[in-house]
Amino acid sequence: MSAGNGSLGLIAGGGELPRAVAMAARAAGRDVFVVPLVGSVTEDWIENFPHEWLTPGEPGRIIKALKGAGVGEVLMAGKVDRPKFSELKLDAKGMLLLPKAVAAAKKGDDALLRFIVGICEDAGLTAISVAQAAPALVADEGTLGKVAPHAEHRADIERAFKIVHALGALDVGQAAVVCDGLPLAVEAAEGTDAMLLRIPLLRESLRGTAEKKRGVLAKALKPLQDAKTDMPVVGVQTVKNAAAVFLAGIAVEAGAALILDKAAVAAEADRLGLFVFGAKP
Amino acid sequence: MSAGNGSLGLIAGGGELPRAVAMAARAAGRDVFVVPLVGSVTEDWIENFPHEWLTPGEPGRIIKALKGAGVGEVLMAGKVDRPKFSELKLDAKGMLLLPKAVAAAKKGDDALLRFIVGICEDAGLTAISVAQAAPALVADEGTLGKVAPHAEHRADIERAFKIVHALGALDVGQAAVVCDGLPLAVEAAEGTDAMLLRIPLLRESLRGTAEKKRGVLAKALKPLQDAKTDMPVVGVQTVKNAAAVFLAGIAVEAGAALILDKAAVAAEADRLGLFVFGAKP
Repeated sequence: MSAGNGSLGLIAGGGELPRAVAMAARAAGRDVFVVPLVGSVTEDWIENFPHEWLTPGEPGRIIKALKGAGVGEVLMAGKVDRPKFSELKLDAKGMLLLPKAVAAAKKGDDALLRFIVGICEDAGLTAISVAQAAPALVADEGTLGKVAPHAEHRADIERAFKIVHALGALDVGQAAVVCDGLPLAVEAAEGTDAMLLRIPLLRESLRGTAEKKRGVLAKALKPLQDAKTDMPVVGVQTVKNAAAVFLAGIAVEAGAALILDKAAVAAEADRLGLFVFGAKP
Repeated sequence: MSAGNGSLGLIAGGGELPRAVAMAARAAGRDVFVVPLVGSVTEDWIENFPHEWLTPGEPGRIIKALKGAGVGEVLMAGKVDRPKFSELKLDAKGMLLLPKAVAAAKKGDDALLRFIVGICEDAGLTAISVAQAAPALVADEGTLGKVAPHAEHRADIERAFKIVHALGALDVGQAAVVCDGLPLAVEAAEGTDAMLLRIPLLRESLRGTAEKKRGVLAKALKPLQDAKTDMPVVGVQTVKNAAAVFLAGIAVEAGAALILDKAAVAAEADRLGLFVFGAKP
């Protein structure tokens, strides 16, 4: 974080996270150089930062670009579509590392991210976490916005975290929904958004309705996950999605989740009457 | 099971299970008297057994009918739609017990079943499990049918049971799908069939396809569940459903799940090329 570490290098995939990280780091007074990954990034926020478009098959050029920009610390954030290796633009280092990259990609997107970060570390750059690069994004303890969880919500939050921790220890998923003590949905490979979409399909007595919001979405880091690449993220869209399936609120663990951006999330939660709560970890 | 226990009384809800229990008990030489619950049973197999139609609101009449038929042991099986208590036909005992029944029904269908079984026990009848009434239905160890799980399937089975046991200990669900080490889906309130339906929505690299079956459905008893009312059940339809979402097979725990009926399930599994496997518990 000190000036001695030079610019922050951000290898950016898609979604809201990379932009939020870049903005937060810049707001904290840091120079940011972005390597948006071709095929994964479609957002135009990139234009506001010095950047160079490259592919996941060009680790040599990625490292050269980062070092050329005076980067000392590097961070990877955002969603990376698993590349079609047969169509991927490769540099010399990419060709050399291709077999390992293919093997990593087969294990999942997380493994591919960790692989690219690992290459940067081998080249002498320091990999840091989103929490280190943009501490303003890290969830605080307590209520964000004006709506606070009631006692029964607190019981659901506690139960949901127990479930998510048990699942996380088995590397299953990082989210669950609990309503009045009953686990309504548990995340596996489908992802949080798809998980939420099945809540309204449950019978009405088990869940909330447009008239009466019920149930809590809890998200937590898997114990096996690398906080450098994979903290759970709550954004304005998460609040909208939770409200659309009639949940009463969202809970994360303080210090172990990211909120993008806090003011906008609080405003949306207030508007929709949901709580967003940072539980004591 | 001895003649000294008199007829078997079967309080029957909907679905395949009650018929399978009645047939298996009769095949084992036992007289069976059925109380099909009005509103829950639509199947016509009832006509093959002495029976009396009653509602969940008539516990007094249920006990009278069972005792009049010489029933000593009683069993409840099948799905019971939560009754609309305001429209329910009630006998005197039903009116007396209504507040407790409503409270039980609010906790879920299982609680309502256990409540009705409890009333029978209070009246001096002995509640027995499906496994006791129809041991032929209980899953055996090993492969049912001709298709056996490969080594990689065995690893997925083991992983899936670990997940289901962890979830079961938290009273979440009783089923999970694992494919090549990756948990694809975990059951909560939606039920096994709904859980299976989301497998084909996952991206193709993670799951089986029409050309290549992959992944295992595992079902296990929750440690908190009462084996008298709630063993996991695999039937011909379960095999069809698993095949429809391109799974390689189904695993249950030997001695702790029911197969309805084994010959038909084996034939369907063979026809569709799936394994049905009883794991050592």
